[in-house]
Amino acid sequence: MASPSPPTPPSAKRVKTNKDTPYNLIYWPGIPGRGEPIRLVLEEAGATYTDTAQMENGMFTVTAHIADDNTGDPSNPPALAPPILKHGGLVISQLSNILLYLGQRLHLAPRFGDGAGDGAYIVNQLALTALDGLSDETHDTHHPISVGLTYEEQSEESLRCAKEYVANRLPKFMGYFERVLKGEASGERPWLYNGTFSYADIVLFQCLDGVKYAFPRAVGQLKKTGDYERVFELYDAVKQRPRIKAYLESHRRQKYSMGIYRHYPELDDAG
Amino acid sequence: MASPSPPTPPSAKRVKTNKDTPYNLIYWPGIPGRGEPIRLVLEEAGATYTDTAQMENGMFTVTAHIADDNTGDPSNPPALAPPILKHGGLVISQLSNILLYLGQRLHLAPRFGDGAGDGAYIVNQLALTALDGLSDETHDTHHPISVGLTYEEQSEESLRCAKEYVANRLPKFMGYFERVLKGEASGERPWLYNGTFSYADIVLFQCLDGVKYAFPRAVGQLKKTGDYERVFELYDAVKQRPRIKAYLESHRRQKYSMGIYRHYPELDDAG
Repeated sequence: MASPSPPTPPSAKRVKTNKDTPYNLIYWPGIPGRGEPIRLVLEEAGATYTDTAQMENGMFTVTAHIADDNTGDPSNPPALAPPILKHGGLVISQLSNILLYLGQRLHLAPRFGDGAGDGAYIVNQLALTALDGLSDETHDTHHPISVGLTYEEQSEESLRCAKEYVANRLPKFMGYFERVLKGEASGERPWLYNGTFSYADIVLFQCLDGVKYAFPRAVGQLKKTGDYERVFELYDAVKQRPRIKAYLESHRRQKYSMGIYRHYPELDDAG
Repeated sequence: MASPSPPTPPSAKRVKTNKDTPYNLIYWPGIPGRGEPIRLVLEEAGATYTDTAQMENGMFTVTAHIADDNTGDPSNPPALAPPILKHGGLVISQLSNILLYLGQRLHLAPRFGDGAGDGAYIVNQLALTALDGLSDETHDTHHPISVGLTYEEQSEESLRCAKEYVANRLPKFMGYFERVLKGEASGERPWLYNGTFSYADIVLFQCLDGVKYAFPRAVGQLKKTGDYERVFELYDAVKQRPRIKAYLESHRRQKYSMGIYRHYPELDDAG
């Protein structure tokens, strides 16, 4: 049953300080990837956190957590893949799950367990839908066959997939969020739910930012139609939030490269 | 802002009766699909529910909910896709989100908001991981390029995708859950977390059941290795739970056909 305990990130690398138990983000260094919505939530809240992306041996921490012989610890099962969040004695994985947890802890979602608790499920729904369509499906345009193969080994299939994505899937998801923002339940503009800023707004911002990097031509064309003005308004509003803005301008914001969002001009032109 | 309100499923079709507010499941009739883990959870709990799969005009209810001009209602945003759960005034979508909600309501997960609340995030993590690997990735073996194309239009790519799935992805996910079950946090056998039956066990059962239907040869070979005995033990234990067993033997359990889990012998043989 025993397996080597993954190393705890050193406290010397804490990004900010306050009185809360620090959050430890464990994710591949070198790409924003599926760690980025988590970083943005932590930054927006001014939370204290460590990040393996900022550590010399960060990669080793990640691989220890997902090693084939890691069976977790007495309280926590192992993770299949990063991102992983360690907070006190809790170790959890799966991006939407980590966001759900942080939404509660950092007051970026309605709280479970009080009268408005059902709103937490609506925020979770919106985050899951953004991640499905604008993160996972965007990733799959350059890896439609398998994550175990390189892009070059599936570039023909990627062209077909990207064509469908640009023509149908991307407008479908953008149209969905425009519709959410038009709906009464979104409340006052520019936010997705109940006129209140939540982590779902951050997720939609980050997803659209990644898609803009990967498919600048396709996103530019969608913007020109004017059919998604509320989505782009939300994007701009998140980007201008003071803590998010400061983070985006800092060295902690990693550049897009070979992660979820990749810019292959032939895929952007495929639509 | 206004859009036609989707019809409420008629109460005459309620599957069972008790004193709780009935749950209304809105999902494509004709396939178990992404509705099935929800049905199993409702059945296990003995909850009162309606199901569009059992209604003559069920398909109409589904399409009304996801219509391009539906902007939701004053409290709830629209859904992108089914499954959708209506419960009292709440309307939520996204399979993992609906399961999270039902887990709390039907006591099939640790409860948020008390001392053991963090366990709810662990159960959510396990369910999300099973759905990622054994539901979504299984679906993608027959639709690697786009859900907007038929299988026949992407059968070549499907062969390549299925080969990778059988050789690498399926054993990876099976190995992960075997590792979870070996770990201390799973507690006493046969359940995934804390020696206590939860909806994550139901999800893993249903996912493996679907994969067995789609890839009988591949699953048979994995079983023969003896490397996944805890996963198969959990599968058998869920299947033998009295309410689940009765449901599986009833007319309400729909047959696999052209949904997430499809049996194409050429894909099963591709590994």
